Amino acid sequence: MKPVAVRNIQRADSNALGVLEALGVSTVHEALGRSGLMKPYMRPIYAGAQIAGPAVTVLAQPGDNWMIHVAVELCQKGDVLVVGCTSDSTDGMFGELLATALHARGVIGLILDAGCRDVKPLTEMGFPVWSKAISAKGTVKATLGAVNIPVVCAGVNVEPGDVVVADDDGVVIVPKKLAVETAAKAQKRQDDEDGKRKQLASGQLSLDMYKMREGLEKAGLRYVDKPEDV
Amino acid sequence: MKPVAVRNIQRADSNALGVLEALGVSTVHEALGRSGLMKPYMRPIYAGAQIAGPAVTVLAQPGDNWMIHVAVELCQKGDVLVVGCTSDSTDGMFGELLATALHARGVIGLILDAGCRDVKPLTEMGFPVWSKAISAKGTVKATLGAVNIPVVCAGVNVEPGDVVVADDDGVVIVPKKLAVETAAKAQKRQDDEDGKRKQLASGQLSLDMYKMREGLEKAGLRYVDKPEDV
Amino acid sequence: MKPVAVRNIQRADSNALGVLEALGVSTVHEALGRSGLMKPYMRPIYAGAQIAGPAVTVLAQPGDNWMIHVAVELCQKGDVLVVGCTSDSTDGMFGELLATALHARGVIGLILDAGCRDVKPLTEMGFPVWSKAISAKGTVKATLGAVNIPVVCAGVNVEPGDVVVADDDGVVIVPKKLAVETAAKAQKRQDDEDGKRKQLASGQLSLDMYKMREGLEKAGLRYVDKPEDV
Amino acid sequence: MKPVAVRNIQRADSNALGVLEALGVSTVHEALGRSGLMKPYMRPIYAGAQIAGPAVTVLAQPGDNWMIHVAVELCQKGDVLVVGCTSDSTDGMFGELLATALHARGVIGLILDAGCRDVKPLTEMGFPVWSKAISAKGTVKATLGAVNIPVVCAGVNVEPGDVVVADDDGVVIVPKKLAVETAAKAQKRQDDEDGKRKQLASGQLSLDMYKMREGLEKAGLRYVDKPEDV
Amino acid sequence: MKPVAVRNIQRADSNALGVLEALGVSTVHEALGRSGLMKPYMRPIYAGAQIAGPAVTVLAQPGDNWMIHVAVELCQKGDVLVVGCTSDSTDGMFGELLATALHARGVIGLILDAGCRDVKPLTEMGFPVWSKAISAKGTVKATLGAVNIPVVCAGVNVEPGDVVVADDDGVVIVPKKLAVETAAKAQKRQDDEDGKRKQLASGQLSLDMYKMREGLEKAGLRYVDKPEDV
Amino acid sequence: MKPVAVRNIQRADSNALGVLEALGVSTVHEALGRSGLMKPYMRPIYAGAQIAGPAVTVLAQPGDNWMIHVAVELCQKGDVLVVGCTSDSTDGMFGELLATALHARGVIGLILDAGCRDVKPLTEMGFPVWSKAISAKGTVKATLGAVNIPVVCAGVNVEPGDVVVADDDGVVIVPKKLAVETAAKAQKRQDDEDGKRKQLASGQLSLDMYKMREGLEKAGLRYVDKPEDV
Repeated sequence: MKPVAVRNIQRADSNALGVLEALGVSTVHEALGRSGLMKPYMRPIYAGAQIAGPAVTVLAQPGDNWMIHVAVELCQKGDVLVVGCTSDSTDGMFGELLATALHARGVIGLILDAGCRDVKPLTEMGFPVWSKAISAKGTVKATLGAVNIPVVCAGVNVEPGDVVVADDDGVVIVPKKLAVETAAKAQKRQDDEDGKRKQLASGQLSLDMYKMREGLEKAGLRYVDKPEDV
Repeated sequence: MKPVAVRNIQRADSNALGVLEALGVSTVHEALGRSGLMKPYMRPIYAGAQIAGPAVTVLAQPGDNWMIHVAVELCQKGDVLVVGCTSDSTDGMFGELLATALHARGVIGLILDAGCRDVKPLTEMGFPVWSKAISAKGTVKATLGAVNIPVVCAGVNVEPGDVVVADDDGVVIVPKKLAVETAAKAQKRQDDEDGKRKQLASGQLSLDMYKMREGLEKAGLRYVDKPEDV
Repeated sequence: MKPVAVRNIQRADSNALGVLEALGVSTVHEALGRSGLMKPYMRPIYAGAQIAGPAVTVLAQPGDNWMIHVAVELCQKGDVLVVGCTSDSTDGMFGELLATALHARGVIGLILDAGCRDVKPLTEMGFPVWSKAISAKGTVKATLGAVNIPVVCAGVNVEPGDVVVADDDGVVIVPKKLAVETAAKAQKRQDDEDGKRKQLASGQLSLDMYKMREGLEKAGLRYVDKPEDV
Repeated sequence: MKPVAVRNIQRADSNALGVLEALGVSTVHEALGRSGLMKPYMRPIYAGAQIAGPAVTVLAQPGDNWMIHVAVELCQKGDVLVVGCTSDSTDGMFGELLATALHARGVIGLILDAGCRDVKPLTEMGFPVWSKAISAKGTVKATLGAVNIPVVCAGVNVEPGDVVVADDDGVVIVPKKLAVETAAKAQKRQDDEDGKRKQLASGQLSLDMYKMREGLEKAGLRYVDKPEDV
Repeated sequence: MKPVAVRNIQRADSNALGVLEALGVSTVHEALGRSGLMKPYMRPIYAGAQIAGPAVTVLAQPGDNWMIHVAVELCQKGDVLVVGCTSDSTDGMFGELLATALHARGVIGLILDAGCRDVKPLTEMGFPVWSKAISAKGTVKATLGAVNIPVVCAGVNVEPGDVVVADDDGVVIVPKKLAVETAAKAQKRQDDEDGKRKQLASGQLSLDMYKMREGLEKAGLRYVDKPEDV
Repeated sequence: MKPVAVRNIQRADSNALGVLEALGVSTVHEALGRSGLMKPYMRPIYAGAQIAGPAVTVLAQPGDNWMIHVAVELCQKGDVLVVGCTSDSTDGMFGELLATALHARGVIGLILDAGCRDVKPLTEMGFPVWSKAISAKGTVKATLGAVNIPVVCAGVNVEPGDVVVADDDGVVIVPKKLAVETAAKAQKRQDDEDGKRKQLASGQLSLDMYKMREGLEKAGLRYVDKPEDV
């Protein structure tokens, strides 16, 4: 890893952001072909936040938030900061002061593969964070990392400018070239599901709607009347 | 494991359900002789839900929710769906569409030894889920499992028709033959505790109420006045 | 370990408690030189509680809450009970009845390196618990431990009378001799941060405020304009 | 759970044991339709042991090995002891003395969903244990459990008399009624694999041997020549 | 993710492989600037293996080894197969038959972010595997993934053709463009350490050799004679 | 935490060391009243080592081994180095060079609540390490900690000079004041067990030897002949 900070990155087409944010993680993840999802240990520090924005990426040493300070200056309005670490850590690399700085620049949220602290003030100021842990453990500013290089965060490789979509279901990354196409696919999926939801709510069975019965029988599923018949 | 779906199962006596639901997991678990409790990683997706109902059981492959679709048809009003997997997984096997289908049939909740997604819409529609994780990871429909056979879910063997009791403290399974007897024992325990609660609230000590002092002394507990006397 | 209960302990100076409680875990932990923090698996059973008080300590066998009953009598108004176990366990060692007893004596909260149950009634009565897990698993009263000896709880050695500070960020222990000094340092830190918060909110960069640019350059950080320049 | 010890159980047909032991866990697990496998945290305390025998089952309180002492008397030559706990624990419930007692009765191994100690003497005496952890933590003899009732151990429900097969790959349980049938299926699978192994060793591709190419194409797999063509 | 298999990839310069293999993971990881290291849960199934070779990459569904079969054909002599999954799983995706096939093609090892089975025959045939778990759990062939696209495995993004170095200390990935440069840096580091090792073995202190005393003093380290002086 | 290094500590009576080493962790832990045992995640990097010696303690930042360098100079022949961290980490804080330095001073082993690397050379040179993980992750020398202050390591509070006993069963700490007394108790326990081992080997039952039958009956254990009688 070279200790470098990249000033200018190409961000995903902003036209897709509104749709991606509205549709949310589960639908977008499906539209991506079931890829791009961060590990489920990434949880929001408060419920209800829903965001989509281009990633500014940080690679940090565990327990060292120096590069987050470097990254602030390189963020634009609407960005989402994504922080990965060179090894596992739950130390509290982020809190109220950094959130104030990011908020002042219009950054809309943080994805942090480490610990977050000051959850009460962060909740009060409405700055959403998805993190691996909540921890007050203070960190140092001693070792360089990098800003705006590709970073693995919670199991996903994030390129600077990729779209981060995050809500109560977790975090998914949309490669920036696929943002518009994925938004369209996700919208189509959502529209399809609206119809299905109504059918299911009226009591129809997915077995019939999706014509699964034949496949199940072919695969060998056997129905019996009573437990004794198994 | 044979790929089979059992249509008709014997459900626990429904008379016990109201009491079991009202008394909740901790009291019922004690009344069962401290057994039947699922592992504590099973957490509700939202706080406050409290249910009791007979189990319809599903054994699924990890990352495959085909058998949940099969199970929907075999559920009745008041049932609780219980899903175990053949190996550990946190993939999001269940979301809004399946919840809509179950809700339409009167199913009152889901116990899922895997991941759940769409937590916001599930919360809004009031369909409670106790699961191992929250994950948007999409699943496939490729491999058979079984419905209404005995299933190990989060460390407990669940027979179809057993009573599932779930609340903010977790999930406990009451064998169907013991449902009425357990409800009675749990009620008695609760009644006893009401009195104790008042005594304790008035400042009485459990050491005296339960006459523990003699046992402690006999076991060798020594009281000293100051740390230096240890 | 000797099975002993110490009746009288020296508690930290109560003058520091108000400040420590108000400033909270993250600030106090920093004021302590970044030490004394319990592991981040210690989470509150409900959000928003914030306490500070002297520790009454319990060393228990896993799955055995006998010594908590012994400890109740030795607590005073304003105390916080701290329970460590001789090995890892998530069993539900504490619930509504013990909370009622502690509440009656004026104890303000519990720190428990094991499982807690009855979270709904505990939330309703406003008795805060920080624990490793939520579990209904019942426990026995069979094996002695100790009360008011030094106890390792969630990775921190707690001496009887040390100050426990706990909030949504976790739990930190302030050695009783350092309570007043730490409160003063934490207050100073908080005052400093108030000014910084305003500067950051107005858009100033921490890179400039803390004069980090020179250090970063000296350490070798290189700025480039475009990803291709890396 | 009733505190009971069952003296006489029906053991699986001993004719199947030799084959099941020789073929090992992975092959037997496949022959069972990919079921019955304990969680992978169950590891042997030393490499190379390979056993098959009927289960004598124990349900114990975590940290309490009283019921293992009860079980010794109920074991026969060739049995395997299987110990589950009512909640998670890594305490060292088993060591050299109990191994000596079991060894004297001809018991051939132990499956323990908790911790094992004395690994050096156990290795020297050649008494194999598959356990969740290695731990010297001493346990008590205070609370009853049960012997020879169905027990969930490491995620599998074990009935007394079921066949336990264990080797370096883990532990699988064969229901006693299926022992002979499973041994036959496993032998057939093994015979089939011998031929395949030779073909593969000679450089044939499984894609061709199993005729997977058509299925892959139908499922939509696309071959491209270079990364740029993706 | 597109379901695609790339036939031809650019492999790292083979001249570097001998040095990287000989120097091993810890030295190579340092030479890379402390990056590229997989998470420490990746452990060899037997001790003593030490390999370096270009990566053929597989992205698989958890519990589905179809794409490993596809990958075999695309491997060359000296390659290392690297398998990542779209979500966490410990299922046994790899065993003796696939190892036989890879061995026949000259593949020298496997890096698997899932479970491995048949550890005894794999050990006997000398085919080394670094995996997350040992598990006999059988897998299916139902869902497509991809071969030779960039894959995140155990926390590291692996490009096809990158060099995999693996030994008893774990697994590190060297980007193919950096292979020769990294081998040279690693060799230099090793040569430097040889001298240091001799100095240390003769009793010299690293405090003096690396001239740390001044830095420690400047940072504020205080030496005291006795515990009471702290 | 004050950044301090204590030059002179009081070491436990060396007369007890031989007995403690010979008897090993499980017996010593029992003799201590079942206390002092580190968590079972502390595993030896190779099997068979067995040591006892006074602790030199280090408190380090995660991912920072600066204080280990400081500690080398303060070690004496026969000492055991014990390293705790201020938060959880698996980074590889220790390897061949530091082992060479410690070996040169006569230090007999290391207890490390973090990661260890260079396991092959450490094994070859016969320097035993008990650690939480094996990891090649390099560390920095940037932040002070302390040497020879009380340190919590893997759940146990270790005072400088306490006796560390470690073998294949794990690690136990004997407070220095109790060393001689504990060695005597452990020897007595061992002598008692020798007789019991012979009785058990001859087929006697622990139920009879320890006269447990009465207690079991009193506690309510019921023997039945057949499963149907439960």
